[in-house]
Amino acid sequence: MITTDILIIGAGPTGLFTVFEAGLLKLKCHLIDALPQPGGQCSELYPKKPIYDIPGFPEILAGDLTSNLLEQGRQFQPGFTLGERAETIETLEDGSFIVTTNKGTKHHAPIIAIAGGLGSFEPRKPQLENIDKYQDKGLAYFIKDPEVYRDKKVVIAGGGDSALDWSIFLADVASEVTLVHRRNEFRGALDSVERVQELKLLNKINIITPAEITGLYGEDKIEGVAVTKNGDTKVLEADAFIPLFGLSPKLGPIGDWGLEIEKNAIKVNTLDYQTNIPGIYAIGDVNTYEGKLKLILCGFHEATLMCQSAYKRLNPGNKFVLKYTTVSGVNGFDGSRKESPKAVVKAIV
Amino acid sequence: MITTDILIIGAGPTGLFTVFEAGLLKLKCHLIDALPQPGGQCSELYPKKPIYDIPGFPEILAGDLTSNLLEQGRQFQPGFTLGERAETIETLEDGSFIVTTNKGTKHHAPIIAIAGGLGSFEPRKPQLENIDKYQDKGLAYFIKDPEVYRDKKVVIAGGGDSALDWSIFLADVASEVTLVHRRNEFRGALDSVERVQELKLLNKINIITPAEITGLYGEDKIEGVAVTKNGDTKVLEADAFIPLFGLSPKLGPIGDWGLEIEKNAIKVNTLDYQTNIPGIYAIGDVNTYEGKLKLILCGFHEATLMCQSAYKRLNPGNKFVLKYTTVSGVNGFDGSRKESPKAVVKAIV
Ligand SMILES: Cc1cc2nc3c(=O)[nH]c(=O)nc-3n(C[C@H](O)[C@H](O)[C@H](O)COP(=O)(O)OP(=O)(O)OC[C@H]3O[C@@H](n4cnc5c(N)ncnc54)[C@H](O)[C@@H]3O)c2cc1C
Ligand SMILES: Cc1cc2nc3c(=O)[nH]c(=O)nc-3n(C[C@H](O)[C@H](O)[C@H](O)COP(=O)(O)OP(=O)(O)OC[C@H]3O[C@@H](n4cnc5c(N)ncnc54)[C@H](O)[C@@H]3O)c2cc1C
Repeated sequence: MITTDILIIGAGPTGLFTVFEAGLLKLKCHLIDALPQPGGQCSELYPKKPIYDIPGFPEILAGDLTSNLLEQGRQFQPGFTLGERAETIETLEDGSFIVTTNKGTKHHAPIIAIAGGLGSFEPRKPQLENIDKYQDKGLAYFIKDPEVYRDKKVVIAGGGDSALDWSIFLADVASEVTLVHRRNEFRGALDSVERVQELKLLNKINIITPAEITGLYGEDKIEGVAVTKNGDTKVLEADAFIPLFGLSPKLGPIGDWGLEIEKNAIKVNTLDYQTNIPGIYAIGDVNTYEGKLKLILCGFHEATLMCQSAYKRLNPGNKFVLKYTTVSGVNGFDGSRKESPKAVVKAIV
Repeated sequence: MITTDILIIGAGPTGLFTVFEAGLLKLKCHLIDALPQPGGQCSELYPKKPIYDIPGFPEILAGDLTSNLLEQGRQFQPGFTLGERAETIETLEDGSFIVTTNKGTKHHAPIIAIAGGLGSFEPRKPQLENIDKYQDKGLAYFIKDPEVYRDKKVVIAGGGDSALDWSIFLADVASEVTLVHRRNEFRGALDSVERVQELKLLNKINIITPAEITGLYGEDKIEGVAVTKNGDTKVLEADAFIPLFGLSPKLGPIGDWGLEIEKNAIKVNTLDYQTNIPGIYAIGDVNTYEGKLKLILCGFHEATLMCQSAYKRLNPGNKFVLKYTTVSGVNGFDGSRKESPKAVVKAIV
């Protein structure tokens, strides 16, 4: 059982900044995310694109924003359960909660912050009869550790940035990379398209287009992948199949937790972004209230007010006084301390 | 008469970010600030100190945050009335407003955003009988243009960073710099204190401590400054006297505009941060509502929601659809355009 002060569901920008604000109040956080990496939409959907409306950044790449937020929270040593979806919640007698993921990992906390964005990102699966049988047996919708594919024969399907970028990356790792797409045209960053074109001419990537994956073969694990092009089907020898058809967000199981839902989002008050269940907050894209804007900077504000409210819940007697980071510095849970150089008081003689 | 869409009172971080958010909605802004430079508390009180809780910046100097915010809004060509205090407001028949400063400058706008922070910064004045007579006649509480002091004899009073830093700066401009402080000890950044010490030893700055300014002399402008040390008074020949005793913020005249005031701040709703007078909003440190935190990141969120509300007020028929800057880019009023590099769609052959 993982225990923490604030259990954050969703490691997008809102969840990541919550770690920092909670840390200032000496509250520890643990994050669950269905994706294998933190950053939410920013890292999954547009890591290489610039955002122009983060205050203080005339321009910042979404991926850099994610790294900065991770760096800002690092001293508060957040825990992570990645690649797992928060599935069920149970309320204990003392009002605290146990959240269990689809892989059975249990988390216990007095405060839940749902920062689930548009929902947990679920891969779009190809329509193949026996596909679930090969899950984690050669079939993967995400690449967590590319070394798994060293000297293996890999078939990738898809026509966007992920398919292009992983084909390029694995060309140097796998013994064979085949990229299958149902159109001749790929859609992605110019340099990725050009690089795949080069690798194709160097015979380091096989490209089969316009074509579709129509079958998977193998006893206990993937051994072959059927590719159909212009009506002709050929079975390629393969150790791995990686369909990269994009992700679609689903509010999913959180929708059944007894929370008030409106327009596929969780209703909260604008005082502290608490839901209808005391102790459960919803912040960032996942919540709704009159005038709600699904913007990153709004999630930052909501996270900050939410942490104050959580602090008061957990320390009912304490009177909390807001301290400026500039004035009081930042004390990390790892023993680190950040502080502004102090003024000196000194005679001039 | 200056006319604009949104008249912002206060050019602190909240006011500056409002320019950007308003610009995204094609609304033009003009800012009034009592200080000679934008940045509010950040530039006036702690420009060289790090802030740790601006989301996405593990650390940023308050002065750099100000420059970044100015840069982020530049394409929307805000106007500035600096060094003037917004004094009176008048409501016209059509519901628009005219705001007049203490120097008589008039501004006309349908929307007012009060981003006045803790109030307009007013210099602490030394208690000298005839002091107001010399205002702008050798006496200045701010230094707007140091060239004014070229080859002049300058007396500075004060013992903090401003007094130290301006003494250092003017040592190379003025013909004579005298720094008077009522203690021997100065309080400031170590390198500033050390530099003044050096300049003193080089006879480039005269230091008189512990001493006080006890009189100002001159017919139409300052010609002499009386300094009293240990009971002895001496009149120094001087062209300029610059008391730098710090600033104290005063809500001031805005307190008499008919706005609901609570705890020296303006009451707003948390929907769009509008005050009890329709069309007048209050954002940032200057407002109050249940759970209010006087933090920079909260001002950013408030400014964003406020601009949406102002847009709806000004365009009652229009249905506004939120656009992501990443997706739609940013069109400056100066003809500039920022946009994310587009994906290409290209066959690989
Ligand atoms: C192309 C594009 C461009 C954009 N441009 C801008 C822009 O310019 N400016 C701007 O402010 N915003 C922009 N946005 C929106 C911005 O990305 C979102 O507002 C932001 O990501 C919301 O952050 P979040 O942390 O609330 O949620 P998300 O980033 O959506 O993160 C939520 C995370 O929660 C996880 N999750 C959800 N449910 C569960 C569960 N049950 N179990 C485990 N994990 C779960 C998800 O997997 C996800 O990783 C853009 C979005 C897109 C798609
Ligand atoms: C030492 C110190 C450290 C701080 N550290 C942090 C920190 O770490 N994190 C954080 O989030 N915050 C911090 N703060 C607080 C932060 O600076 C404020 O929250 C922020 O400046 C508020 O921004 P604002 O734009 O609302 O108002 P302000 O920055 O106060 O700007 C308001 C401006 O309005 C002008 N004004 C007011 N009335 C009038 C008028 N009638 N006419 C003309 N002009 C007028 C004023 O002159 C001023 O320039 C700190 C503050 C101080 C003093």
